[in-house]
Amino acid sequence: MADKMSDKTRRRLPRHVREQQIIDAAIQVFSKRGYHLAVVDEIAELAGISKPMVYLYFGSKEGLFTACIRREGELLTESFANAARTARDAESQLWRGLSAFFGFVAEHRDGWVVLYRQASEVGGEVAAEVQRQRGEVGAAVASLVASGIARTDTSARLADPEVSFVAMALVGAADALTDWMAEHPGESPDQVTQRLMSMIWVGMRNALAGETWTPPRG
Amino acid sequence: MADKMSDKTRRRLPRHVREQQIIDAAIQVFSKRGYHLAVVDEIAELAGISKPMVYLYFGSKEGLFTACIRREGELLTESFANAARTARDAESQLWRGLSAFFGFVAEHRDGWVVLYRQASEVGGEVAAEVQRQRGEVGAAVASLVASGIARTDTSARLADPEVSFVAMALVGAADALTDWMAEHPGESPDQVTQRLMSMIWVGMRNALAGETWTPPRG
Repeated sequence: MADKMSDKTRRRLPRHVREQQIIDAAIQVFSKRGYHLAVVDEIAELAGISKPMVYLYFGSKEGLFTACIRREGELLTESFANAARTARDAESQLWRGLSAFFGFVAEHRDGWVVLYRQASEVGGEVAAEVQRQRGEVGAAVASLVASGIARTDTSARLADPEVSFVAMALVGAADALTDWMAEHPGESPDQVTQRLMSMIWVGMRNALAGETWTPPRG
Repeated sequence: MADKMSDKTRRRLPRHVREQQIIDAAIQVFSKRGYHLAVVDEIAELAGISKPMVYLYFGSKEGLFTACIRREGELLTESFANAARTARDAESQLWRGLSAFFGFVAEHRDGWVVLYRQASEVGGEVAAEVQRQRGEVGAAVASLVASGIARTDTSARLADPEVSFVAMALVGAADALTDWMAEHPGESPDQVTQRLMSMIWVGMRNALAGETWTPPRG
């Protein structure tokens, strides 16, 4: 009976588990070959699953690529949010959150990061998924910024324009800096985070407190 | 003879001029219909040029779209660089340059900005052009940052990692903020610039001077 069960288990893995196996294999193949040269046969073989099953689950090569971007993007957002949640004030939240973000990027240099760079080239459904994720990350960062500042300084202004502005600028900067990291492989995630904090933290605190810079006369 | 010349002139416009007319028409049609629904017939008709001529000049609809992105991107970079050049120190350079950038974005809300948003969805050649431009804008900003800081404070450190880091973060933030502007149409380009300067100027000056933020213990 035990034998029968284990055999059955091997053959009837839950759909969710199989999907994850396929995604793991797909990330390896896509990042090694590039989207256009990757073939579903190789992915199916690596995952130990038949090719028709891959199509059944993901519809197409593009659908599979989109699923890879979605899963890894969600992991990235979670690691950012979890790291930030444990901190006690806005400054620590930002430091821990960004450090987790750049840490993820450094760890996934050869996998997810490669895929993410390919995404804009692939276009279509994939680009739409990246755009959707960027919006979600922006919203997550905005909510962290708002709650962090509220916890730190109850007199701080929390109106939408300031918070969403700061969050959007931050997401854009962090995103662009992943390219900079690729060009400076010797920099650790913590060094990158420290550079970004040095550049933005003072101004961000001031901006959220409603202090404004005024144009020079020159 | 004068009649004959003017007739000839009308028929034999220099290639460069015709190309610009086609690009003007294409921007209108692409931004109105979206890339996938736009047809070259409509663009040719609006430009007053035959459809085969459009293909002769640009190769394909994708080639034409790439040319639109290239021309408008170059105009944007120029307007940023020209505005910044006239200022006398780093702070004014940045203020004027960013103000010109966001001014361009606000003015071209219905034209180029729409195209730029479509670019990642189209992918391929177009996405490669956007990527190339982003690199160029980054380099232009880095050189401005370096020269501005040098003019302002000769004791400032000008090593590459600091300058390229600041430039990249700035380009990423400004790029992401064009989305924010779309969601906040009531904000003027100068208000947006002021918000960004409030957020980054103090930290940027410190970062370039080699002052570093240190992680909190919390």
